[in-house]
Amino acid sequence: MNTFGHLFRVTTFGESHGPAIGCVVDGCPPGLELDPAEFAHDLQRRATGKSRHTSARREADVVEILSGVYQGRTTGTPIGLLIRNTDQRSKDYGTIAAQFRPGHADYSYWHKYGIRDPRGGGRSSARETTMRVAAGVIAKKWLGQRFGVRVRGFLSQLGQIRPAGFDWNAVEDNPFFWPHAAQVDELETYMDALRKSGDSVGARVDVVADNVPPGWGEPVYGKLDGELAAALMSINAVKGVEIGDGFAAAAQKGTEHRDLITPQGFLSNHAGGILGGISTGQAITASIVLKPTSSLRLPGATVDVDGNVVEVVTTGRHDPCVGIRATPIAEAMVALVLMDQALRHRAQCGDVGAVSPRIPG
Amino acid sequence: MNTFGHLFRVTTFGESHGPAIGCVVDGCPPGLELDPAEFAHDLQRRATGKSRHTSARREADVVEILSGVYQGRTTGTPIGLLIRNTDQRSKDYGTIAAQFRPGHADYSYWHKYGIRDPRGGGRSSARETTMRVAAGVIAKKWLGQRFGVRVRGFLSQLGQIRPAGFDWNAVEDNPFFWPHAAQVDELETYMDALRKSGDSVGARVDVVADNVPPGWGEPVYGKLDGELAAALMSINAVKGVEIGDGFAAAAQKGTEHRDLITPQGFLSNHAGGILGGISTGQAITASIVLKPTSSLRLPGATVDVDGNVVEVVTTGRHDPCVGIRATPIAEAMVALVLMDQALRHRAQCGDVGAVSPRIPG
Amino acid sequence: MNTFGHLFRVTTFGESHGPAIGCVVDGCPPGLELDPAEFAHDLQRRATGKSRHTSARREADVVEILSGVYQGRTTGTPIGLLIRNTDQRSKDYGTIAAQFRPGHADYSYWHKYGIRDPRGGGRSSARETTMRVAAGVIAKKWLGQRFGVRVRGFLSQLGQIRPAGFDWNAVEDNPFFWPHAAQVDELETYMDALRKSGDSVGARVDVVADNVPPGWGEPVYGKLDGELAAALMSINAVKGVEIGDGFAAAAQKGTEHRDLITPQGFLSNHAGGILGGISTGQAITASIVLKPTSSLRLPGATVDVDGNVVEVVTTGRHDPCVGIRATPIAEAMVALVLMDQALRHRAQCGDVGAVSPRIPG
Amino acid sequence: MNTFGHLFRVTTFGESHGPAIGCVVDGCPPGLELDPAEFAHDLQRRATGKSRHTSARREADVVEILSGVYQGRTTGTPIGLLIRNTDQRSKDYGTIAAQFRPGHADYSYWHKYGIRDPRGGGRSSARETTMRVAAGVIAKKWLGQRFGVRVRGFLSQLGQIRPAGFDWNAVEDNPFFWPHAAQVDELETYMDALRKSGDSVGARVDVVADNVPPGWGEPVYGKLDGELAAALMSINAVKGVEIGDGFAAAAQKGTEHRDLITPQGFLSNHAGGILGGISTGQAITASIVLKPTSSLRLPGATVDVDGNVVEVVTTGRHDPCVGIRATPIAEAMVALVLMDQALRHRAQCGDVGAVSPRIPG
Repeated sequence: MNTFGHLFRVTTFGESHGPAIGCVVDGCPPGLELDPAEFAHDLQRRATGKSRHTSARREADVVEILSGVYQGRTTGTPIGLLIRNTDQRSKDYGTIAAQFRPGHADYSYWHKYGIRDPRGGGRSSARETTMRVAAGVIAKKWLGQRFGVRVRGFLSQLGQIRPAGFDWNAVEDNPFFWPHAAQVDELETYMDALRKSGDSVGARVDVVADNVPPGWGEPVYGKLDGELAAALMSINAVKGVEIGDGFAAAAQKGTEHRDLITPQGFLSNHAGGILGGISTGQAITASIVLKPTSSLRLPGATVDVDGNVVEVVTTGRHDPCVGIRATPIAEAMVALVLMDQALRHRAQCGDVGAVSPRIPG
Repeated sequence: MNTFGHLFRVTTFGESHGPAIGCVVDGCPPGLELDPAEFAHDLQRRATGKSRHTSARREADVVEILSGVYQGRTTGTPIGLLIRNTDQRSKDYGTIAAQFRPGHADYSYWHKYGIRDPRGGGRSSARETTMRVAAGVIAKKWLGQRFGVRVRGFLSQLGQIRPAGFDWNAVEDNPFFWPHAAQVDELETYMDALRKSGDSVGARVDVVADNVPPGWGEPVYGKLDGELAAALMSINAVKGVEIGDGFAAAAQKGTEHRDLITPQGFLSNHAGGILGGISTGQAITASIVLKPTSSLRLPGATVDVDGNVVEVVTTGRHDPCVGIRATPIAEAMVALVLMDQALRHRAQCGDVGAVSPRIPG
Repeated sequence: MNTFGHLFRVTTFGESHGPAIGCVVDGCPPGLELDPAEFAHDLQRRATGKSRHTSARREADVVEILSGVYQGRTTGTPIGLLIRNTDQRSKDYGTIAAQFRPGHADYSYWHKYGIRDPRGGGRSSARETTMRVAAGVIAKKWLGQRFGVRVRGFLSQLGQIRPAGFDWNAVEDNPFFWPHAAQVDELETYMDALRKSGDSVGARVDVVADNVPPGWGEPVYGKLDGELAAALMSINAVKGVEIGDGFAAAAQKGTEHRDLITPQGFLSNHAGGILGGISTGQAITASIVLKPTSSLRLPGATVDVDGNVVEVVTTGRHDPCVGIRATPIAEAMVALVLMDQALRHRAQCGDVGAVSPRIPG
Repeated sequence: MNTFGHLFRVTTFGESHGPAIGCVVDGCPPGLELDPAEFAHDLQRRATGKSRHTSARREADVVEILSGVYQGRTTGTPIGLLIRNTDQRSKDYGTIAAQFRPGHADYSYWHKYGIRDPRGGGRSSARETTMRVAAGVIAKKWLGQRFGVRVRGFLSQLGQIRPAGFDWNAVEDNPFFWPHAAQVDELETYMDALRKSGDSVGARVDVVADNVPPGWGEPVYGKLDGELAAALMSINAVKGVEIGDGFAAAAQKGTEHRDLITPQGFLSNHAGGILGGISTGQAITASIVLKPTSSLRLPGATVDVDGNVVEVVTTGRHDPCVGIRATPIAEAMVALVLMDQALRHRAQCGDVGAVSPRIPG
């Protein structure tokens, strides 16, 4: 199960410290212009080593297009993408190869497979998400050209800190994808102290997709929100997903939650743009929570593969807050879901859906 | 996309006010004892009309096994299940057939398909979940017999009210699946007032699965938590899913969140029994939020299919809190995911997984 | 794996002597007119008991539409179809319940599942194909309305007898789907003698689909011919599938086999309308072979479930040539494949494919 | 649809004259020893340029394992395989880039996608089958180690020539995979004359799988023979598939075709080891026909992309009989199907199937 999607299918492979990571994007419509250079922007947004607040590993993340593109356009055949790993330091992992970090996937991988690649987390490493972002670039482009869909994310919580204001323009101007410029100094200070302490912290990321047409989503087991939940929960360290008001809805009344409709538009968006698993034409809004990294310099009680009691300390390069870099990854997953649903909708219902009455999104 | 699961596949069909609802359960291991009477318990837990706090619709919900069972045992061939609808009152829906209830799926279904069955919500009705519960009965039984897995749920929030205590024994002794008996009167009073007001309210449901062996789940796009998220989000009215600590993890430190390991067991379960998308052997814990019902007697601004401004009032029979009856549905979805993952694990890794060191769950 | 198709998905259930057989048709485009009476024509073509040359079992084969249709039109939600079995005679099977008929699936089902429903062949019975034909009616109708596609079959060999002439008009005027009226008496005589002898015979069926647009089929593992092969081979008793010239191509030269192209059309159709797994716009032609029925009144050496040597004799009602009734079943499977591919093509490439140069089919 | 299989999934990518071809093998059981050198044997059997009877293109076909293997063993994570293309000569295709070769996929690809990579046939080239063979090596190894399954093929017809004798030992000792050594000179002479003539010829390949346990195959739409048919028909140039006696069964009587059973074994194998879509324990036998290559030096009438009448002549390097090299490809596809079905059987029915009575295969 290393394939995501039904009609726009992304199959990824590769370990953190293996020779390369890659993916196959299958089902892309033919004729889309695609240049290897287009991957750089989102890959750099996701990359480590750009600020002191992320892991120090520096990967060039140069994408090679191996197939599926001819004379600069997609041909409809599978698009093979490859990125060579260049900055592995596997010796960092010698000491923990036989120990289970509390909260880390090395314990569960061991029990599932009876064997695992311990270097850098192997397959469970966030390195895999590089290919999600690469595939997401293709989806974002097609959705944008075809429907004007725009998928954007931001960090909406870092530890206890929440945004004190909101401006989309601020998001890309700081290393935290934070929507309020005035708080960036506070975040820097917080992260510096955290890093020195050897501890890590959780975070929350919000994603918004504008201009999604009404009608996307396949009830009842291919609902748009169901697939967004699966896609977002599949991101490393994610422990929760909300659509629209999410868990706040538990305390809401029906008169409070329902989004009234006028010919000029909906009067609110508690639903997050999805009703009955199908898009309404409003902005799709989703939120995720990412747990704090489990690879810590602070010792923790655990066992080794022989069942002995040990104290584990992780000395490799790790993000003190994996949530920060999750923003472009979450955007990519939302884009992949939307692209897949767009094609599925077109398959069953044709290019043009029912359009009356068309309420502005 | 009316099929759930990969190897244990449940395909449902049927509308709220159609002649029948049904499902096909494909991939069930052969030799499992199965009697039509076994469905009654969970179906009654899910049924409306048992207390004044749920919809007044009364369905017998008698399951007919049409195939796949011979001399009281499953044969490995598809199990066809059928329930005839007996208490439809479609005339209730005459007035709203051409109006869009704010917050209801009738708007999005219309825009997707250009046609919809308005009677009782048609396919978007929670009536469909009856078959999920029926299929879940099979999954629960097999999981229980084969692995001792037990899947149980309870209501963990109703509007603003949260449990003031916890006792599994209390859960099945009140119409709310509430884990603290002393609060049941309060809930009764609250729901009576709510019903009279014509409004509805949201809720939260928790599900716990015990005795799940370590190793279930398929990274990276078939992770156990990813599939639980998809399964649970596919339930009507669900707007959020959490695994383990969920959104609380955003404010946690790594030293706080990680579950330390000793040979005698894990010292906590913030992870909700899943690491890297694979079960650890601890209890699986998941939570969902259900929005308040959108079908209200209180008028709301909307439009009709011709785009005219109207005020909609819903007079059919509806639950003032759909969250209450969601408990057995959520259990069923968790059971379906676990059953599917159990078979998938067996396919790739065989009946016996790696077992050393085996930490008590 | 009781589901056929990717986007137009048919899930069947039911045993030969169970209470009912049924299917769920998922992914049907909304808005298609559909009346229960429309199933009768093809179901009668497939039915037994109409002539003395098929099994004497007489089923009414009345289709009940349980869901997915509202006011005479499909709604895009799953279409549940049900047929009650009415003419089972399970006592016929008492003696062979513990014996393995040579050439019959009861041996392999037993070894797979360790349990089987022996009545009438259970799930392995051709009774299951009734639902294929029912689902095929929907596919044929949509393909016909939307593209003018027409799918027709005929018997092209019965034992050693081959058609001495060809006329589509003759096919539906005899109980053999034979394309040459002058041979019908010979076939009657042959079948009468065969039936009296207690033996059975093989047959060959050809299917032709006209007006299939160029461009359908998904290389490389979803090729149109690959999916036709899977679909046709899944029919009971089929042992071979050919596209176009089929096995004759082994002895052909390239200059002989290739279909030359002119602006007025192709000059031949050795390819059977498919190149590289994609339709060319020519007629799709496929052939299948059906082995002779294994349920014979003539005794045969075998073993029972305890491994004892026995002689088996089958006394139930069986077709002396299953190939005869396979014609509408093969048509249905071709229609299901084409419908599925039509939707898949629309998903990836949109409603309008590349059209220049358009060579007449 | 560039993914083959359900549980053992192979996703291929790459064009004939692109930078590389590759595949991702997902779902492989963990712990299997795998060395890059193991791919060489079957890849060389498939390779061109080894004798004058195949295309002159010479590829090193060196497989790089990019992921999924750690310390020489599979880890259960996806196995990425890559082969760089080294001997492309794209200028060969300049003249036919805008012409449609009669009988070639360039016509249908053009009509499907509106764009295609004309160099060497692009995605429709048999170059893609290299990765099938590579993936097949993994399947063959696991099947052999776990069950003793052996999959072998041979050329059973070349043009009008059929084997005059049979010896498995002869098959690998000549460039034709021919089972009768005494005919090799005749084949050499035939092929030399054919090559000089500029024409091509069809062929037939048989594959036999020994030691397949009874019980593999999933009725009714995942039957073992149905999936073999799909797998084999997906090979370039294949126009027909037979299981067991295949089309000869049309003229057989039931008493002739059925395989009588004794405790010591079956008395014949007309069924080709499959009944009701499930293996019986006998040898699985399948045959395919491959049409003659459509890329000929002999001119043929066709049109170009603008619809103009032209005469096409193909000057690139091509096989005069693609059937010859199809033998290892067909073996690989059979192995992929068996591996997938083995895992699926284990999922539903566990490691041990019903074993009484066990008839020798």
